[in-house]
Amino acid sequence: GQKLVLVVGPDVVETEEQVMATAREVKRVSEKHGLPAVFKCSFDKANRTSLKSYRGPGLDEALSLFAKVKAETGLPLVTDVHETWQAARAAEVVDLLQVPAFLCRQTDLLVACAKTGRAVQVKKGQMVAPKDMRHAVGKLRESGCTEIFLTERGATFGYNNLVVDMRSLPLMRDIGVPVCMDATHAVQLPSAAGGSSGGERRFVAGLARAATAIGIDALFLEIHPDPDNALCDGPNSLDFAGFDELVGQVVAIRRALGQP
Amino acid sequence: GQKLVLVVGPDVVETEEQVMATAREVKRVSEKHGLPAVFKCSFDKANRTSLKSYRGPGLDEALSLFAKVKAETGLPLVTDVHETWQAARAAEVVDLLQVPAFLCRQTDLLVACAKTGRAVQVKKGQMVAPKDMRHAVGKLRESGCTEIFLTERGATFGYNNLVVDMRSLPLMRDIGVPVCMDATHAVQLPSAAGGSSGGERRFVAGLARAATAIGIDALFLEIHPDPDNALCDGPNSLDFAGFDELVGQVVAIRRALGQP
Amino acid sequence: GQKLVLVVGPDVVETEEQVMATAREVKRVSEKHGLPAVFKCSFDKANRTSLKSYRGPGLDEALSLFAKVKAETGLPLVTDVHETWQAARAAEVVDLLQVPAFLCRQTDLLVACAKTGRAVQVKKGQMVAPKDMRHAVGKLRESGCTEIFLTERGATFGYNNLVVDMRSLPLMRDIGVPVCMDATHAVQLPSAAGGSSGGERRFVAGLARAATAIGIDALFLEIHPDPDNALCDGPNSLDFAGFDELVGQVVAIRRALGQP
Amino acid sequence: GQKLVLVVGPDVVETEEQVMATAREVKRVSEKHGLPAVFKCSFDKANRTSLKSYRGPGLDEALSLFAKVKAETGLPLVTDVHETWQAARAAEVVDLLQVPAFLCRQTDLLVACAKTGRAVQVKKGQMVAPKDMRHAVGKLRESGCTEIFLTERGATFGYNNLVVDMRSLPLMRDIGVPVCMDATHAVQLPSAAGGSSGGERRFVAGLARAATAIGIDALFLEIHPDPDNALCDGPNSLDFAGFDELVGQVVAIRRALGQP
Repeated sequence: GQKLVLVVGPDVVETEEQVMATAREVKRVSEKHGLPAVFKCSFDKANRTSLKSYRGPGLDEALSLFAKVKAETGLPLVTDVHETWQAARAAEVVDLLQVPAFLCRQTDLLVACAKTGRAVQVKKGQMVAPKDMRHAVGKLRESGCTEIFLTERGATFGYNNLVVDMRSLPLMRDIGVPVCMDATHAVQLPSAAGGSSGGERRFVAGLARAATAIGIDALFLEIHPDPDNALCDGPNSLDFAGFDELVGQVVAIRRALGQP
Repeated sequence: GQKLVLVVGPDVVETEEQVMATAREVKRVSEKHGLPAVFKCSFDKANRTSLKSYRGPGLDEALSLFAKVKAETGLPLVTDVHETWQAARAAEVVDLLQVPAFLCRQTDLLVACAKTGRAVQVKKGQMVAPKDMRHAVGKLRESGCTEIFLTERGATFGYNNLVVDMRSLPLMRDIGVPVCMDATHAVQLPSAAGGSSGGERRFVAGLARAATAIGIDALFLEIHPDPDNALCDGPNSLDFAGFDELVGQVVAIRRALGQP
Repeated sequence: GQKLVLVVGPDVVETEEQVMATAREVKRVSEKHGLPAVFKCSFDKANRTSLKSYRGPGLDEALSLFAKVKAETGLPLVTDVHETWQAARAAEVVDLLQVPAFLCRQTDLLVACAKTGRAVQVKKGQMVAPKDMRHAVGKLRESGCTEIFLTERGATFGYNNLVVDMRSLPLMRDIGVPVCMDATHAVQLPSAAGGSSGGERRFVAGLARAATAIGIDALFLEIHPDPDNALCDGPNSLDFAGFDELVGQVVAIRRALGQP
Repeated sequence: GQKLVLVVGPDVVETEEQVMATAREVKRVSEKHGLPAVFKCSFDKANRTSLKSYRGPGLDEALSLFAKVKAETGLPLVTDVHETWQAARAAEVVDLLQVPAFLCRQTDLLVACAKTGRAVQVKKGQMVAPKDMRHAVGKLRESGCTEIFLTERGATFGYNNLVVDMRSLPLMRDIGVPVCMDATHAVQLPSAAGGSSGGERRFVAGLARAATAIGIDALFLEIHPDPDNALCDGPNSLDFAGFDELVGQVVAIRRALGQP
């Protein structure tokens, strides 16, 4: 057994201060609880509900900021890519590439990520059965990727709602890869808040604990110094105190179950 | 906080030996782990897939056997009723009446259960939203019932499949009643095994641990001395060793979270 | 090929005037369009959302009113039963017994209906796969029922919503029985209107036409002289003019497809 | 009211012969029934289940073949694009750009399509509520697109299954754009056939008739000279005779409803 990996950060770059403060908090909390951590941040929100939604600073500016985070904190980095040309560019700075859930069947994007030689995290599509993620893993492996993990972030459940099928975690582990619970996006209510997606922050900690108790290798969370004023995914982001408390609970559950 | 209540037993009466052996195991394991227990057993399986499926011994024979269980083990009892006339009869022997999930909107059945003065457990219908269980609670309360709890046993998810929406547990607690996780029926695959419902026993323990970690007041499990030869719900029943091990994990998780 | 059968009436008995006026309209419209009709009316709404919802006059009063409808209009009758003891009582007056969707797996109710010798209509459970309705048909046939039909009324689709899977109509026909589209209950939004179920009347006609175009043997509709003031299911009932117009469209579609 | 538009073609380019034969059939059948037609063909299947699945000849070869189709038949053309850079290239030859269902929330792709000045068809995502397609329409309009239509192709319904919610057609029309029924992809069973998606051709005609009866502006179908040997989507493609017969039925239904 390996220690649980924390994959945590802000949803998207807003300002340098916000990114750096969050990175320091990820470092502090992970060290406090003795867990490895990866800093997660998006450079672009490519599928916001509306054209008017905030998207981020773009690849160039974000990558130079990510490099600063790495230099200061030493944390490995992950970011999500949306078109093939972004994979190699992002891979110059980040350690791990993330394929978004809506795009988990886009063959070219998977292949482009694999070709970088970086580790790849694929979010399970909201419309994909857990066992069918073996096809994404197959496309990555056949393209040379050796470090892969799969992430649960909720399944389509009627309109404007997601449900986390906890069975997906052991089912995706059966594919032979480590699995991650994204407790932040799992509580999204797609498009439910009019021109943007809503979210139910109150369920984040409970779903993270539940996933830990069924068995995971990594935990994905988005945090923000001031979630109610975040420019994206605020309704489902934790604040710093909530993050620290949740990691404490997760560590306690794993210890109770005899896991490192 | 109260201690977790175990609601455990065989799915249905097969023989006196099977019932008594199971009741002794429920008593032994609950005492070993210091938890209160209720012995659960059905007298009739009223909604089996096929006319040829085993249904049980009927109300009279079952009730006299339930009385024996109570006399020997001292465990309180729960059984499920399907038509109004059964409520008062069953209430002569059992301490708690269970309203099945398919029937959770049948007003007369809820009222008949409430009228007995017994505690009532309502399984959340597979087709009912968690918050809408307030209507079942309202019908019971307005009919004089003062001890009510609600049980999650999976939600309809496409055809021949159920998904446990872990959010239902805090959402039903919001109604102001204790909540229970039925980890046995939650892994049913309705009608998926041809003339009867299939099940995935491998997920029972994981879902029970997950529900514990999000927060429950009671845990519902079906166990059998020899699950692979059970006459009903064998594919999702635990054996005795699995039951004991799972309760140990559940107790450890609660302790890790500072719960009694 | 047979002519399309109309199964139409008010949701529930409110007053004698309402029932008689509706019955006369069913007779008038069915004769105008040359279609056979069955008059549908409930004596009791057994699964209303709240205890305060209107339920109907009860079995005795309703049956004597149903007898009047039959005497005056000559229409055959159908009503729904909820517990076993009601089947034989209702069968004294009505020609066809209806098993409600939530109860379509209750073995005793199916058997009690079959034992009356009457024809039986089973609504497909919102949580049941179309092909699995073969089990309900099997229980009826093995209990002596020779005239059976199955009715689509929507499938559970997330919370507080139903979706009509049009494939269910040919799939249930494959079982070897005629199939019916209930376009009224298919547009319910379960519990979505607070203390009662909502509905979207605007989709009734479209779903009825769509089902006709894929292929059905009977069409189930609820109508009301004044739907906005109906005591139950008003939001999804048609008024008399809408009923007449819809039957005209349905007849035209069948003729266009070469059906009688 | 306008005449129904047929959007029909092979799933993907296999050979020049197959494409030309199919285009001639689209022309012949549409003229026979007096309907306008758009020839649909993909140059690349970007989200096949497996890396080994056939994808097509690529953009350059396909575009020169599409130009030949246009020169010979005079039919307007539509093809689907998957990354932003493809939009302008494809728009040199095709009249209408299609945004795939999985990608219907990718802002950059929508904007790139709009910028070409061509008409744009967006498939409703399997995981998107009908009314939320207004966001895709908004992104297109704000980027200068004036001809938009939305296509229903099924909604996620549990795992490995789609359901067509016929309400989506009037709901998407409410957004103020014409709507199309894709009866071919609506009968896909995602990933259900092991390493590729299965399909149920038997339901194509019924769903197309049903959608016509509820109300559509365009009908999308994939056809193949020999569907059982097609390299992609064969299980849900119609053969030429089935296509002709279905268009006859659809025309008859529209005439029965007084539509042109």
